[in-house]
Amino acid sequence: MDRLTGRSLDLCTGPLSRHGGGMNTKSAYVHGYSPQEARRLGDQADTLAGLLHAGTAYAAGSRVLEVGCGVGAQTVHLARSSPGARIVAIDRSAESLAQAQEYVTAREPWASVEWHIADLHDLPFGVGEFHHVFACFVLEHLPDPGRALAALRRVLRPGGTLTVIEGDHGSVVLHPDSIHAHEVIGHQVRLQAAAGGNALLGRALQPLLSDAGFDQVMVRPRTAYADATRPALVDGLTRKTFIAMVEAVRDQALSTGLTTAADWDRGIADLRLTAEEGGTFHYTFFKAVGVKPLA
Amino acid sequence: MDRLTGRSLDLCTGPLSRHGGGMNTKSAYVHGYSPQEARRLGDQADTLAGLLHAGTAYAAGSRVLEVGCGVGAQTVHLARSSPGARIVAIDRSAESLAQAQEYVTAREPWASVEWHIADLHDLPFGVGEFHHVFACFVLEHLPDPGRALAALRRVLRPGGTLTVIEGDHGSVVLHPDSIHAHEVIGHQVRLQAAAGGNALLGRALQPLLSDAGFDQVMVRPRTAYADATRPALVDGLTRKTFIAMVEAVRDQALSTGLTTAADWDRGIADLRLTAEEGGTFHYTFFKAVGVKPLA
Repeated sequence: MDRLTGRSLDLCTGPLSRHGGGMNTKSAYVHGYSPQEARRLGDQADTLAGLLHAGTAYAAGSRVLEVGCGVGAQTVHLARSSPGARIVAIDRSAESLAQAQEYVTAREPWASVEWHIADLHDLPFGVGEFHHVFACFVLEHLPDPGRALAALRRVLRPGGTLTVIEGDHGSVVLHPDSIHAHEVIGHQVRLQAAAGGNALLGRALQPLLSDAGFDQVMVRPRTAYADATRPALVDGLTRKTFIAMVEAVRDQALSTGLTTAADWDRGIADLRLTAEEGGTFHYTFFKAVGVKPLA
Repeated sequence: MDRLTGRSLDLCTGPLSRHGGGMNTKSAYVHGYSPQEARRLGDQADTLAGLLHAGTAYAAGSRVLEVGCGVGAQTVHLARSSPGARIVAIDRSAESLAQAQEYVTAREPWASVEWHIADLHDLPFGVGEFHHVFACFVLEHLPDPGRALAALRRVLRPGGTLTVIEGDHGSVVLHPDSIHAHEVIGHQVRLQAAAGGNALLGRALQPLLSDAGFDQVMVRPRTAYADATRPALVDGLTRKTFIAMVEAVRDQALSTGLTTAADWDRGIADLRLTAEEGGTFHYTFFKAVGVKPLA
């Protein structure tokens, strides 16, 4: 659980430390890369793959950069959707990349994926080297997403596309509703902010990409909703993705004095009710595509 | 503006008085039925028609009951999507129905629509008279939606479908975010609750329909999102639908002591920023379909 400490609905990337985030780097790192965790992240990504990857398919032969690939949970879907594309996946963590390589090779053995240890702010690629860039749940961890977008824009060729996917915890709708549940979600948001990130970033993608000089910016909400008629989604989305992610910051929320054990447990218990019979859970991801101008 | 007093994103129905709601029945009624207001509701419905009506098409010859048709803003889309269906539209308000008839006849002159003044709790129809029932932004105004669903179930034939569409103000995501804007939205929610309704009903549709004895209940979010790249949607959704609806309860919010003029105006000003360059607005509607069991 600590693997996801301080992070939001993060299905594809490594721990905060990759991007220089911080307060709990060490524990996140230590617990972050077990094979079990990789499998869990993969399962979560599979749950949402149809929702998030629909519409993303790159032409055969095109060179695609995935930044912050983490354990490869999204890379495998990129490879599946774009079988002829030449994917270059980067992450700051060597362990993460090793896991990603194993994970993707096992599932898409014929995929063309190069793996590089790299920081997205200091990319070891030339100007305009890529036809497309893909970043899923990465910007939400960066203190300055605009700076990151400028770095990505540099390596993109004119006319190439940037695709960014982010969640937004402000879109959570719970039934039964509970102020206590919203409080624990708020603690997650605060901890992520304290680590230099922003769990409410999805709503800001359009101005972010436009301000970073991308053209034809198109943002579409990708809404996930689970109720008792969809038990697999209740399990994969509500329980194993969202609630597990919030639960993961318990120790931090207590040690930093944000809440008490009693209040925390009450909020989590209420959150769990949304995954029971009669409960519902709603969350919106935002998927943005922008084009690097020709001139 | 007073037309929408005490109501949520209500694009198809008449004032609260229809269903026995109440604190501001009179003013809502007086100002509710001008031709301008009907046109505005129609424009709003047109903005969202693709989003809300997609997937709803009834077979030629089928008998379809629309409850709470109001000024016909949704009726016209029902008729368009199901050209051969025999639609029966009811509303408690004679004025509303007269407007609806004029509105729909002008736009879909060949549509088969019967108009009845009726309360959905006391329907002048026999058991199983309808193949399908459609209710858009109606349950949110009722103190007991379960009772209403039982009444609708009665007139539906076994195997027939019920379609319910509701918004949920808890799904609002604003950029730039503002506690003041959320406060004015909260006042709208409180006033609707005081009138016996529920502006947070969308999230509860699945358990509501299931508990009311509908089978194969399927709820899908229909998310509306507007940013500067879609000026028509910013205007139709953010400004003319959502902000206008919230602004409409200003007098009530002040007269009931929920807020001060300064706080109100500050919240509205912040809400308007979401419709400016760099702003974004997100709202989720919930569309539920259930089937009346065969036995």
